[in-house]
Amino acid sequence: MEGRGFYNANSAWQASGAATALSLFAEAASEVPLDDTEGPIVLADYGSSQGRNSLAPLRAAITELRSRVGPQRPIIVAHVDQPANDFATLFDVVDTAAGSYTSDEGNIFPCAVGRSFYRSVLPPDYVHLGWSSYAAHWLSRVPTRIPGHIYVPRATADARAAFTEQARSDWETFLSLRALELRPGGRLVIVAPALDDSATTPFAVLFDYANQALVDMVAEGTLHREERERMVVSAFQRTRTEAQAPFVDDRRFAGLTARSCTVSEVPDPSWLQFEQDRDQRALAARRAAFFRATFAPTLSDALDHRDADARKSFCNRLEAGLCQRLDDHVAPIATFAVTLLVVKE
Amino acid sequence: MEGRGFYNANSAWQASGAATALSLFAEAASEVPLDDTEGPIVLADYGSSQGRNSLAPLRAAITELRSRVGPQRPIIVAHVDQPANDFATLFDVVDTAAGSYTSDEGNIFPCAVGRSFYRSVLPPDYVHLGWSSYAAHWLSRVPTRIPGHIYVPRATADARAAFTEQARSDWETFLSLRALELRPGGRLVIVAPALDDSATTPFAVLFDYANQALVDMVAEGTLHREERERMVVSAFQRTRTEAQAPFVDDRRFAGLTARSCTVSEVPDPSWLQFEQDRDQRALAARRAAFFRATFAPTLSDALDHRDADARKSFCNRLEAGLCQRLDDHVAPIATFAVTLLVVKE
Repeated sequence: MEGRGFYNANSAWQASGAATALSLFAEAASEVPLDDTEGPIVLADYGSSQGRNSLAPLRAAITELRSRVGPQRPIIVAHVDQPANDFATLFDVVDTAAGSYTSDEGNIFPCAVGRSFYRSVLPPDYVHLGWSSYAAHWLSRVPTRIPGHIYVPRATADARAAFTEQARSDWETFLSLRALELRPGGRLVIVAPALDDSATTPFAVLFDYANQALVDMVAEGTLHREERERMVVSAFQRTRTEAQAPFVDDRRFAGLTARSCTVSEVPDPSWLQFEQDRDQRALAARRAAFFRATFAPTLSDALDHRDADARKSFCNRLEAGLCQRLDDHVAPIATFAVTLLVVKE
Repeated sequence: MEGRGFYNANSAWQASGAATALSLFAEAASEVPLDDTEGPIVLADYGSSQGRNSLAPLRAAITELRSRVGPQRPIIVAHVDQPANDFATLFDVVDTAAGSYTSDEGNIFPCAVGRSFYRSVLPPDYVHLGWSSYAAHWLSRVPTRIPGHIYVPRATADARAAFTEQARSDWETFLSLRALELRPGGRLVIVAPALDDSATTPFAVLFDYANQALVDMVAEGTLHREERERMVVSAFQRTRTEAQAPFVDDRRFAGLTARSCTVSEVPDPSWLQFEQDRDQRALAARRAAFFRATFAPTLSDALDHRDADARKSFCNRLEAGLCQRLDDHVAPIATFAVTLLVVKE
């Protein structure tokens, strides 16, 4: 994710997807067993990025919890992301943003864990309630390159098989680790970009344009061919079948039960805005900024020189090229999200 | 503290001071009451900066704790610092540095809290063992300017009185908040730069040179007079008497008992290195880099333009000017540290 608050400002799509799971998370907060001690209630946010999109779901859950335990009981909120995540922005947002879960609440203790969620990040039997939004589709590693493209659904069969296997293994790792961290009775809601069961990929249009913009950069000499060939967006959109795959025996896996698993269409927030303002150029700019904030940093890992200036210049050029190409695309772009509720039983 | 790991690389003086308290902290770990549950043991590091100087004391404490509870019991380590602290470097150092407290240990869970320690940062009755090194002398606010200087011990009587009052109030706030966060029986070791009881200030020589370098910058036009006048190092070195002041009745304050309070001289690590290499220029460069890493960022808060480039250019110029002036100062610079052990009883 791009740092210095840029991701927070350009991740409406992720927020739109997460909104589909918000009421499910609030319901989990109303049902999760709470022991009778005075000890802290622990919420975990797996893949927080810069925090903005976590505020509303955490606030909804905390409202439910407060109605059950009153204002005195401490609540810990642990935001988990990669070590290099922009935690300075996260702490600032959590503390000062309108609508933050801390804004009219005392006895709330935010903290951050800078460690990949493909490792243990919190103690065993520690978490009452977990949330993971638009994060669990990022893979732990890039298993192979994608000839001629950056986007997994556009990969050849061989490359796609390698990604499918990586995604299967990462998903089991993610779920197994979270199963250890949840308390008995603890609940975890996961929402992530998905493919619908027909595996249609309307979202791919954005990656096709971005891929063309990268080809342009090679042609004009602002990107080396070898850099371009290394570039992959190492994210995997699961189908409902893939998301449910580990829960084979009675919907159980690693001590977790899948209570629900749904795939739903996510409204395109850029398009909703366009229906208000009818500004074609602004539509392209919003989509290009979203793409840059979300995917350009991971693409820039493939640059030969990865200092801040080189990355910034790459991201600027990609965003400009993408914006230009998107100017013609005046249509909504549908995406899908898969939402799971799992319980440790 | 300067970001991107620069503070970690130039804070040997702070490490040297903290070393005086290390055995006291290990002893506290061997004595702190541990309940019989399997729940996490919680360590807090108040004022972690980028983490390097916290590794050795935390490792020593964890070794003691492990000999008492075995390898399975989880240990949480909460690093507390300002929201804008360089937590990316901290997480990287904690995870990868040789000598980190995680390096041959499992079941350790580092996290960060990005909130001033002049607020509640952790839940009540949560912390078994606290550590605060070279942090509690930083004040919560600048109570007044210091005419003609940047360093509190060089202030006029009026200005010094304002700082003394701020330091008194901040110290009571710091101790009261930590008293709430400690568990009954919990221990906190605090080590901070101090004045000895005669209030001699050999360390002031460094600030005199830095102050002269700032005057030079005004003269040459690289710093505005008004910017210079706003610059203050908002830190306060307490004497032993001032550090003990809150503990009036039977050495108790806010539920804490002061078990010990000592002031000791801290060896000058730049000088120790000079005795090895006899390199006068390197001596000046080390001291200037130390000053820059520790104090230049807080001075740069007074700039009219506080973007990253402006700050960097100011810090570069100040370091260069200070280095030039320090070239003549071929003598050790003594400093003092005050070390307290407090227990919640």
